[in-house]
Amino acid sequence: MKLASDARGVYVIAPTPFHPDGRIDEASIDRMTDFFIDAGVDGITLLGQLGEAPKMTHRESVGIVSRVAARAKVPIIVGVSSPGFAPMRELTQDAMEAGAAGVMIAPPNTLRTDDAIVAYYRQASEAIGADVPFVIQDYPLTFSVQMTPAVIRRIAQDNPSCVMLKHEDWPGLEKISQLRAWEREGAMRHLAILTGNNALFLDFEMDRGADGANTGYCFPDMLVDVVRLSAQGKRDEAHDLFDAHLPLLRYEQQQGLGLAVRKYLLMRRGAIAHDVQRAPGAGLTPKARAEVDYLLARLARRDRRAQAALGS
Amino acid sequence: MKLASDARGVYVIAPTPFHPDGRIDEASIDRMTDFFIDAGVDGITLLGQLGEAPKMTHRESVGIVSRVAARAKVPIIVGVSSPGFAPMRELTQDAMEAGAAGVMIAPPNTLRTDDAIVAYYRQASEAIGADVPFVIQDYPLTFSVQMTPAVIRRIAQDNPSCVMLKHEDWPGLEKISQLRAWEREGAMRHLAILTGNNALFLDFEMDRGADGANTGYCFPDMLVDVVRLSAQGKRDEAHDLFDAHLPLLRYEQQQGLGLAVRKYLLMRRGAIAHDVQRAPGAGLTPKARAEVDYLLARLARRDRRAQAALGS
Amino acid sequence: MKLASDARGVYVIAPTPFHPDGRIDEASIDRMTDFFIDAGVDGITLLGQLGEAPKMTHRESVGIVSRVAARAKVPIIVGVSSPGFAPMRELTQDAMEAGAAGVMIAPPNTLRTDDAIVAYYRQASEAIGADVPFVIQDYPLTFSVQMTPAVIRRIAQDNPSCVMLKHEDWPGLEKISQLRAWEREGAMRHLAILTGNNALFLDFEMDRGADGANTGYCFPDMLVDVVRLSAQGKRDEAHDLFDAHLPLLRYEQQQGLGLAVRKYLLMRRGAIAHDVQRAPGAGLTPKARAEVDYLLARLARRDRRAQAALGS
Amino acid sequence: MKLASDARGVYVIAPTPFHPDGRIDEASIDRMTDFFIDAGVDGITLLGQLGEAPKMTHRESVGIVSRVAARAKVPIIVGVSSPGFAPMRELTQDAMEAGAAGVMIAPPNTLRTDDAIVAYYRQASEAIGADVPFVIQDYPLTFSVQMTPAVIRRIAQDNPSCVMLKHEDWPGLEKISQLRAWEREGAMRHLAILTGNNALFLDFEMDRGADGANTGYCFPDMLVDVVRLSAQGKRDEAHDLFDAHLPLLRYEQQQGLGLAVRKYLLMRRGAIAHDVQRAPGAGLTPKARAEVDYLLARLARRDRRAQAALGS
Repeated sequence: MKLASDARGVYVIAPTPFHPDGRIDEASIDRMTDFFIDAGVDGITLLGQLGEAPKMTHRESVGIVSRVAARAKVPIIVGVSSPGFAPMRELTQDAMEAGAAGVMIAPPNTLRTDDAIVAYYRQASEAIGADVPFVIQDYPLTFSVQMTPAVIRRIAQDNPSCVMLKHEDWPGLEKISQLRAWEREGAMRHLAILTGNNALFLDFEMDRGADGANTGYCFPDMLVDVVRLSAQGKRDEAHDLFDAHLPLLRYEQQQGLGLAVRKYLLMRRGAIAHDVQRAPGAGLTPKARAEVDYLLARLARRDRRAQAALGS
Repeated sequence: MKLASDARGVYVIAPTPFHPDGRIDEASIDRMTDFFIDAGVDGITLLGQLGEAPKMTHRESVGIVSRVAARAKVPIIVGVSSPGFAPMRELTQDAMEAGAAGVMIAPPNTLRTDDAIVAYYRQASEAIGADVPFVIQDYPLTFSVQMTPAVIRRIAQDNPSCVMLKHEDWPGLEKISQLRAWEREGAMRHLAILTGNNALFLDFEMDRGADGANTGYCFPDMLVDVVRLSAQGKRDEAHDLFDAHLPLLRYEQQQGLGLAVRKYLLMRRGAIAHDVQRAPGAGLTPKARAEVDYLLARLARRDRRAQAALGS
Repeated sequence: MKLASDARGVYVIAPTPFHPDGRIDEASIDRMTDFFIDAGVDGITLLGQLGEAPKMTHRESVGIVSRVAARAKVPIIVGVSSPGFAPMRELTQDAMEAGAAGVMIAPPNTLRTDDAIVAYYRQASEAIGADVPFVIQDYPLTFSVQMTPAVIRRIAQDNPSCVMLKHEDWPGLEKISQLRAWEREGAMRHLAILTGNNALFLDFEMDRGADGANTGYCFPDMLVDVVRLSAQGKRDEAHDLFDAHLPLLRYEQQQGLGLAVRKYLLMRRGAIAHDVQRAPGAGLTPKARAEVDYLLARLARRDRRAQAALGS
Repeated sequence: MKLASDARGVYVIAPTPFHPDGRIDEASIDRMTDFFIDAGVDGITLLGQLGEAPKMTHRESVGIVSRVAARAKVPIIVGVSSPGFAPMRELTQDAMEAGAAGVMIAPPNTLRTDDAIVAYYRQASEAIGADVPFVIQDYPLTFSVQMTPAVIRRIAQDNPSCVMLKHEDWPGLEKISQLRAWEREGAMRHLAILTGNNALFLDFEMDRGADGANTGYCFPDMLVDVVRLSAQGKRDEAHDLFDAHLPLLRYEQQQGLGLAVRKYLLMRRGAIAHDVQRAPGAGLTPKARAEVDYLLARLARRDRRAQAALGS
């Protein structure tokens, strides 16, 4: 089952659960996998930026992929971004053998020209093999690399194995509109576009032509509902649900701090046992924890899924 | 009337209104000034980043300051950031003569070490004169300069004329807490802390110890209410009001695009006649305009000030 | 006399001489102008990065241009780079009226895509007027903006008033070769290419197709000779002369510190009265000064122009 | 044999030799190791930036360390920089077991404040173990991280296992002077300072207090001689030798292109069989190759070691 450009829905970005001493928490990996499946996600992305990928050894990374792929009955995407192509190839091969459906590649933050970006993806695809489906991660806020729509189109043209765009440009609504306009005009083949940025603009991204979300907000069930309501044309209902979550979602979307918030909330929701990160990783102060609790309590008045989290 | 460290409340960041042909729209400056005063703001900041400051000639800049200072009965802060100290000094002198209460200085985006930042503010203060009150603009997302709390404390210690922090670090809640903790311990003198980032975290920033907001969200009247409710300890009411605005506020906070949204909304609210920017400046597509209208209509169900904007 | 794309030779980058108290030293401006003319330069560039342009007020900038243009009988290029187009237009107009032959424009360091760079130069040309000849300053090391040869070609195509490239990409030899290959193939019109980077690769740049140097090394007379010897096909003589200067030239080419070295040497050569910079500006420690003296003494064994400097 | 802070002399940065098909060329590793030992180097650094470290798998990296450590009778330093601490720890442990004397750690290019840099080295030292000697790599031009002398002093104070500074700040002469001044005043313990930047300022760095060079210029024998002559107080002889190499050394020091030049020259000198790099890697055009040959021929008139290279 390989990832293809007709993918859609919610591909949740999974964090990596650890024990307080930093060891990988395998029981929590299983619990979290079940939690995501119960939430109705269509796929799972492992070892992305917020999966603390660079903090894992190769062996650990492959172990996580094997474990989740064996348990979940949905496609698994694996982040394989690396400063060099040899480790990228090695992780890709082992991840695909372990059951992944495709890989995700972010550009190194030194790329500065259109041609350099396009050349990078051609070399990366050569390195991992032309038969491995890959996702472009377009996240300028973190990677300092800006891809115009024309650059994304060139990457899609050059590499038949490019099947998806993880869209996290910011602002990015016009980028979706441009890519879809080209597709309608026959000027570009279809890529799945799943959006990130903790879903901060998911309410409008669906309307612009996105196929779903590829992000890790602690209520993936809400993302699933918003994507479904949008697909059904229930715009107001989609916004109502989204708006109820926006105060918390925004809090979780803070750069650098967001993963700590997310893990804390996933712990409160029972998806993982501990909210620890491997070093270096920011923790939440008691004050921040209280702020999250306050937002959760406010959310519970409007979404009963939040009530369950409060009770835990 | 000089700016002092006991400043508090809402200092709105004013855009610069233009005619469609790019000339400064003086009638709109007057109308906008009245609009801000009616909204209850405690001060006005002119010629900040979102005031399109670098697109103005020196003469134009001074003209704007004179006009607003003559009309408004609140303190005026003027952005004087510049790649060099001679133009910074010249604009400061002319702005103060024209009636400004103080100036705001952002660091050049080449500063990379703590010492370099501290030295820069010492030289800037020397350049403008030790008698001119100044505001530190701490906005790493745009300027790529990161100031730790300790660096801000050093700047405050070095320069008695430093009276305010425009806080737009992101994430930034812990920074406010740290500065206020030092103040309580007697380890730092009091600086006014007014927060920016389009007020995206104002609901919590007040609780952390901020003295108000220094930002330009198109409903400054809402900011005034949230600051007041927070000061009165009415936390839930403050959040209720804030949350109603959050979907629109978030839309307005998009990097690069935010000013176009803001000007469009201020035009709809009747504060300015045109939503044009001087080149280079992003405009709104019809699609984006419709999205803003949709958010405004949704807001109108919960805040009657938005109803008035719809009617215009 | 307007700058055109057939410009060639040495266009020296002039520093701005100050009195020890920071005032502009007009007598030294005159002396330096004569010094450059005596050295045989073909043109003079004022108010570049190493002319401390951002530290000058508009009035001061125009004053310097007027003074040099009235005295020198060679074309004057004026750096007009600015964060905004209104000040750029104002300085351009006043500089051209004061006798400049053209202007030089560097890209703002926030540009990240090919299209953004091309759009910027189109807008800049519109702002200053299509009749004003301009020079592209391509200096990635300082501006963090990388222009591929294709981007430079697009700028040249879009803007007939683009007449020269100040080439300071690093490494940059292949860029010259590519642009000249396109020109030979009829795929690009001719631009004057004058090289910067303190002439660190001038020996090879001439051979690659450069038309000369546009830099400020303290021995512009050496640059003139190297360009002449290269044009005459005297490759070994050109390298012999260049190599004799390389130890000193390299010392002067240090980022941040280079201007202090250059002003010190121009002072020793009698071209300016003081080696001071306006704040913020690095000074030379006694140790660094002694190192420069040592290099000058070593150079004096091979170039008698250095002997004269020692004697002063 | 562990690396200690009394290290001195020339620690050559070794490239990684490949076969034309990209496999590691083990015979060339041996030949190159012998070549370095014959040149008189005091140590060898493997897997630095110019050792193409990120392009190697973990297994390959350890294999290279084992091979060189078994053959060379000098201390081996291994670059272990990594985006995460788990791979850094894993490579450190395996490298030390394979015979390394210490490791080198560069900061990730996202660090922006003094405290963040200091914290990073503390965490890195914890991750690799307090018993493993490490080298700070201070290379702002490539890593965009600027360490003041005070930051280096804090790292040295925090971590007894910090024994060496690979100094490649640019400009950097005053940094050496400052660190040595603190050492003389008893305000800082001694660190070995070995300089990089392809030795572009080695002639003066020795005089400022450096203990030697830690760089990979293709004539390490020249570096050994310059360090020796400097130590003997033969300043003019040191400069004479250095100046003869400067034209070629400068050519080899081009960012991005330098490794291609270096490998080509090491191939001409017989140290390695092929000058290929793993992708992505720049190659030399025929024109560039001819320029290097020309510089080599010129050098051969003044250094007979270059004659041998010409003959090969």
